[in-house]
Amino acid sequence: MPFAMTEAPTPFAIGLDGGGSGCRVAICDASGVILGRGEGGPANATTDFDGTIRHLCAALDIACAGAGVAVADLAGMPAHAGLAGVISAEVGDRVARALPLRRVTVTEDSDTMLAGALGPQDGSLAAIGTGSFFARQAGDASRSVGGWGFQLSDQASGAWLGHELMKLALHVSDGLVAESPLMRAVLEELGGPPGLVAFGRRALAHDYAAYAPRIVEAAKAGDSAGLSLMWQGATFLRFALDGLGHRADEPLCLTGGVGVHYARYLDDMVLIPPKGSALDGALALARRVPA
Amino acid sequence: MPFAMTEAPTPFAIGLDGGGSGCRVAICDASGVILGRGEGGPANATTDFDGTIRHLCAALDIACAGAGVAVADLAGMPAHAGLAGVISAEVGDRVARALPLRRVTVTEDSDTMLAGALGPQDGSLAAIGTGSFFARQAGDASRSVGGWGFQLSDQASGAWLGHELMKLALHVSDGLVAESPLMRAVLEELGGPPGLVAFGRRALAHDYAAYAPRIVEAAKAGDSAGLSLMWQGATFLRFALDGLGHRADEPLCLTGGVGVHYARYLDDMVLIPPKGSALDGALALARRVPA
Repeated sequence: MPFAMTEAPTPFAIGLDGGGSGCRVAICDASGVILGRGEGGPANATTDFDGTIRHLCAALDIACAGAGVAVADLAGMPAHAGLAGVISAEVGDRVARALPLRRVTVTEDSDTMLAGALGPQDGSLAAIGTGSFFARQAGDASRSVGGWGFQLSDQASGAWLGHELMKLALHVSDGLVAESPLMRAVLEELGGPPGLVAFGRRALAHDYAAYAPRIVEAAKAGDSAGLSLMWQGATFLRFALDGLGHRADEPLCLTGGVGVHYARYLDDMVLIPPKGSALDGALALARRVPA
Repeated sequence: MPFAMTEAPTPFAIGLDGGGSGCRVAICDASGVILGRGEGGPANATTDFDGTIRHLCAALDIACAGAGVAVADLAGMPAHAGLAGVISAEVGDRVARALPLRRVTVTEDSDTMLAGALGPQDGSLAAIGTGSFFARQAGDASRSVGGWGFQLSDQASGAWLGHELMKLALHVSDGLVAESPLMRAVLEELGGPPGLVAFGRRALAHDYAAYAPRIVEAAKAGDSAGLSLMWQGATFLRFALDGLGHRADEPLCLTGGVGVHYARYLDDMVLIPPKGSALDGALALARRVPA
């Protein structure tokens, strides 16, 4: 025998992370070393429950193959899934029953993002991309606010910034608010109020969010409308963190394509980069699953 | 001959008023006495141009029959049409060319509502129903702001109040804002955040506006959320009137199903009831059409 057989490390925990664009699974040993990884399709438990289970199982199979273990051998391992669309305890329970894992807890992906970004330390997370949510952990307790979608929530998000930009453009056109280079450009590109109204009738969250990078850059260049919108977003962020009980000396992690750009409006806060991903958070929460 | 023939009064001006739910035409003599009236279908010049012209012509035919004159005999009379959807000078010109009237001016219905509500005196109008717009006249000059539709405009309107109510309900559910009887009732009726999110995905302006009467009543009863929303609406109203140059000693006319309920939040202003309708305003503006 040319190679000595070594005993494979024992799998210890399983992390599952799922959102609207895909899902990821990782299996680690007791020291946290990743033994196998898998990826799969979208996993939003509310918009497509069956697809979510199918995609998570496919990703789990790939991760098991990588770790050299059978799925059945993992059924008793502690596992945690953080998924988009876990809007109630019922949805979480339903996912837990449908997965081939006996010791799995299921929460919203906000919980895994929070645990991943902060690691074990107390603090808060402002996750701001097209949408937004705000979360805080202290000890083993965590809580999140926002994230209910563009129509009624997600203040400070990219979609929110773009939507406020369009509303402000109509105020500028009506002569209620002073013009700025950004407002002039947007009004001209969209064809004035009639074009803005037509845009507003068909626009979805990502259409509004497409304007966020320009708002960020205009604000950096001193544009009055850009600055007003970014300060309004930062004000909502402070309001949400206050509501969560965030303390001035605690770390705050800004993530997402828009989130990082709020840093310059929050220079009195203790900002830290994210320690890890939502998948890292899922593995960390799996370690807390009771035997 | 049992009756003496008297000469019919000479028609002098034609007023046309059109909105999303119907149109009205009136023909008056030189002293302002109405000689004939007609009604017809919807007249929004942007959403249905051909239907607008057809409905206006049908209503004009009825008014002419009532006045005992042929449409052709009126072609040279001064006329004014105030229509929904006249979002640009081009749309107005196109309507004017399509009508069988040579001396007709065409504007948005906000102009005729303003002229009708205030008569010849200087002052402002806040027209607030499902949507909203704000207008001011001083001498022969007038100007309006807002009214661009629910998606990007119409602050203080019924739809705006209902939308803000739903956003506030999610803040209450998230623990960011204190509960109130109105908030508790709305959250319970809609099934908490998941129900609110589902409502927000399908709701149109009139769905949100359906909550406005409850907001008005809750505010009267001292509900903190109701009061907050009504004061926010009144604050926007003041902002819009300031932008229009409204002076504290000028009359302000509140119209629309929601508008009248802002009176108690504006007790420092000179409030007057509307003097007349948009059709009255169209007749008044017809009298200003140059020969």
